[in-house]
Amino acid sequence: MAVTVTVWNENVHEREDDDVRELYPDGIHGAIAEGLEAPGRDIRTATLQEPSHGLPEDVLAETDVLIWWSHCANDEVSDDVASRVVDRVHEGMGFVPVHSGKNSKPFTRLMGTTCNIKYRHGGEKERIWVADPGHPIADGLEESFEIPSTEMYGEPYDVPEPDRTVFISWFEGGEVFRSGLCYRRGRGRIFAFRPGHEIYPIFYQDEVRQVLSNAVDWAAPTTGAEAVWEEVDPIEPLEDT
Amino acid sequence: MAVTVTVWNENVHEREDDDVRELYPDGIHGAIAEGLEAPGRDIRTATLQEPSHGLPEDVLAETDVLIWWSHCANDEVSDDVASRVVDRVHEGMGFVPVHSGKNSKPFTRLMGTTCNIKYRHGGEKERIWVADPGHPIADGLEESFEIPSTEMYGEPYDVPEPDRTVFISWFEGGEVFRSGLCYRRGRGRIFAFRPGHEIYPIFYQDEVRQVLSNAVDWAAPTTGAEAVWEEVDPIEPLEDT
Amino acid sequence: MAVTVTVWNENVHEREDDDVRELYPDGIHGAIAEGLEAPGRDIRTATLQEPSHGLPEDVLAETDVLIWWSHCANDEVSDDVASRVVDRVHEGMGFVPVHSGKNSKPFTRLMGTTCNIKYRHGGEKERIWVADPGHPIADGLEESFEIPSTEMYGEPYDVPEPDRTVFISWFEGGEVFRSGLCYRRGRGRIFAFRPGHEIYPIFYQDEVRQVLSNAVDWAAPTTGAEAVWEEVDPIEPLEDT
Amino acid sequence: MAVTVTVWNENVHEREDDDVRELYPDGIHGAIAEGLEAPGRDIRTATLQEPSHGLPEDVLAETDVLIWWSHCANDEVSDDVASRVVDRVHEGMGFVPVHSGKNSKPFTRLMGTTCNIKYRHGGEKERIWVADPGHPIADGLEESFEIPSTEMYGEPYDVPEPDRTVFISWFEGGEVFRSGLCYRRGRGRIFAFRPGHEIYPIFYQDEVRQVLSNAVDWAAPTTGAEAVWEEVDPIEPLEDT
Repeated sequence: MAVTVTVWNENVHEREDDDVRELYPDGIHGAIAEGLEAPGRDIRTATLQEPSHGLPEDVLAETDVLIWWSHCANDEVSDDVASRVVDRVHEGMGFVPVHSGKNSKPFTRLMGTTCNIKYRHGGEKERIWVADPGHPIADGLEESFEIPSTEMYGEPYDVPEPDRTVFISWFEGGEVFRSGLCYRRGRGRIFAFRPGHEIYPIFYQDEVRQVLSNAVDWAAPTTGAEAVWEEVDPIEPLEDT
Repeated sequence: MAVTVTVWNENVHEREDDDVRELYPDGIHGAIAEGLEAPGRDIRTATLQEPSHGLPEDVLAETDVLIWWSHCANDEVSDDVASRVVDRVHEGMGFVPVHSGKNSKPFTRLMGTTCNIKYRHGGEKERIWVADPGHPIADGLEESFEIPSTEMYGEPYDVPEPDRTVFISWFEGGEVFRSGLCYRRGRGRIFAFRPGHEIYPIFYQDEVRQVLSNAVDWAAPTTGAEAVWEEVDPIEPLEDT
Repeated sequence: MAVTVTVWNENVHEREDDDVRELYPDGIHGAIAEGLEAPGRDIRTATLQEPSHGLPEDVLAETDVLIWWSHCANDEVSDDVASRVVDRVHEGMGFVPVHSGKNSKPFTRLMGTTCNIKYRHGGEKERIWVADPGHPIADGLEESFEIPSTEMYGEPYDVPEPDRTVFISWFEGGEVFRSGLCYRRGRGRIFAFRPGHEIYPIFYQDEVRQVLSNAVDWAAPTTGAEAVWEEVDPIEPLEDT
Repeated sequence: MAVTVTVWNENVHEREDDDVRELYPDGIHGAIAEGLEAPGRDIRTATLQEPSHGLPEDVLAETDVLIWWSHCANDEVSDDVASRVVDRVHEGMGFVPVHSGKNSKPFTRLMGTTCNIKYRHGGEKERIWVADPGHPIADGLEESFEIPSTEMYGEPYDVPEPDRTVFISWFEGGEVFRSGLCYRRGRGRIFAFRPGHEIYPIFYQDEVRQVLSNAVDWAAPTTGAEAVWEEVDPIEPLEDT
């Protein structure tokens, strides 16, 4: 059965900064979408500037996995759209916030924490280690891979203790970071992935594309069981109390 | 060092319903507060009807553990007060939502899920089993205790997988429920405890008072380490990249 | 790709007790195996009485998911075979201990706890609630299902806090039990499932067969990443220290 | 109430290697014990060479927290003593394996995994980051501390997903490691702490002593609830089945 993936991007840097536009002429969403192309996948994109940020109810209803890139415009996402995304995650939609998508309204609402980090611009080497080689999001990877130049994110990362820690990053400047974390909220699977600053060609890198593709497979909804959330009659007879 | 506990109650049923007022003449908050009295504790109460719901910044700043009872007025809690509570939990304040406090704004925001359940009014027997006898919130309990008559809450309980499952309830009518769950969000410890409908004398029951008292000890803030969340310089020298 | 399932059974009650043999003429392993039949699955059985208990190295090497039923003969399993099973789980083989398989050498070694419970023979009703309706092991189930007559297992269940609590049982006699728990050890997925006493026709019940079939799908190995566990040279240059 | 701490050391390098003896004239156990001295603590030491490795039943029965340093002699610990330690952890004794204590029989039996790592001798800088600044084992620390020269341990670390990840190490040579992990098995709290190779003065370092002292406070047993693990009568009346 086809998996429908929507790649969402705030799409601001690409429109305002020549260097970013040159690097990502089809937008970061375009580069991510290209990397996800595979048989059995229907890949779409949506951006902040579209009506309802490109995420009206019918689009979300059809989306199996939502990949989310955002940075400087996290506050411009409407509360309504953010709530709609959160609701769909509860129903089962996979959600993959990338890079500063950790600061997005949907992710912080799903986590219930500040999602604070330390950071550094300027570019330095990151080596991403697989901490959980048995996890399907690590399928096909070697034990580590490098991103030659990136923004640094450093611990402590103020998120709830994750279900699984898939990746941990080493940074040239001396910090570490839990770069791939798995959660579930309601029926929805969430994978928070660190890499991806807009001024580096990270979304063209093979390993990053492999991880995002694995994450789509992992986060796609499954059937599950029925859930009844309402006032109910007793199944067993009650004594008078 | 003294532990400051604030017992918060929406205090609506007690004012509007004669039976509840007769049962809890000092309010549910009064009954909970009475049960927590112990050397080294400073116990306060606060209610929805007070200015800032009795939770202005200075009160929260002094509170080590906030116990929260709410039911019909969850929506009347202001967003500002709810945010302030959440922020204080992130800073380290313990938070113990009781009964329908699971539907409160602070708890649902800290969880990131719907916190949905099934339920039944009318009164029936609940037997609360200790699933984690090594947990300090179970200190001094036998392996189970009964609440003779209560509202039923039934699974599935739509919360994140907890850090620890301390209690699981058996209900006469045929359901089960995870009645004592531990979480951490930021530096703050959270214990969600199921019992406590307003028309039963549950907050006078010894075992319930024992659990709440244990929860206060468990949830009180600890020192922790420093956390730096800002732009930082490299610790190690960077190559030109 | 075909999934190879080995259903292991101590096969003692069926040979020693007429009632059990009449109920399970092909053994409990036969009944479980029958219930797992599906396209793309290669289902095998193995029993205690065979050489190497039917689990020589080549059989385990080919097995993707091992289902394990045991009860009175847990101590008769050789330490070597138990170690081999544990090693294969570490390598990625799924492991599904059923009923008293919780007391088996492989399961207790994988857990590191006593796996103690309370219990009661004689037959009573069990209602198994789905606590995690978003979990694939609950696929296709209603919100609960009943086993008309069974042995009771009661909390506390002395196992490590699980990755996910999929099922919680209600028992007619007043107890509760976490009846479906997920773990990972190394690359291997483990699902401990409570039902299945030998004197009841539980392994012919549709919902039980559905759960075991779902568990096979969930526990089957995935590719994962490379893991290097040895002495290694530095990747980055070291200063003299 | 006094907390009784037993510091166990295989005590082999100190007796066989002049450099180690010079660095740790009272043994690594002596240096660790010295660092734990505090009012309300009764600190003892025990070594491999003593009868029952210094851990006969009465010593373990009195021990609240067992700190364990081992390396080259892990296989020389008798199975009986290892089982006794595991049993006492189940009963509530805290257990703090340090450095290669991760390969000890008690720790690997409690984890149920291989506890494999990658490693490198020769000495390099390690920077230990606090990933969980709200955890009491990090009390009083800055956001990171350095060990000037140490053996490297690198991910993947083949342990079960921990309850909490308190520390993550950055290594000069390019690796990362989860250096402080919390578990519970039965009633016992376990804290696995990475630092501590025998040829470096690590156990004289203030931050390391602070962590071990915090770990003793955290891992000390608490009261808990009663647990009944036996055949039991029904609490509720059973229908004939």
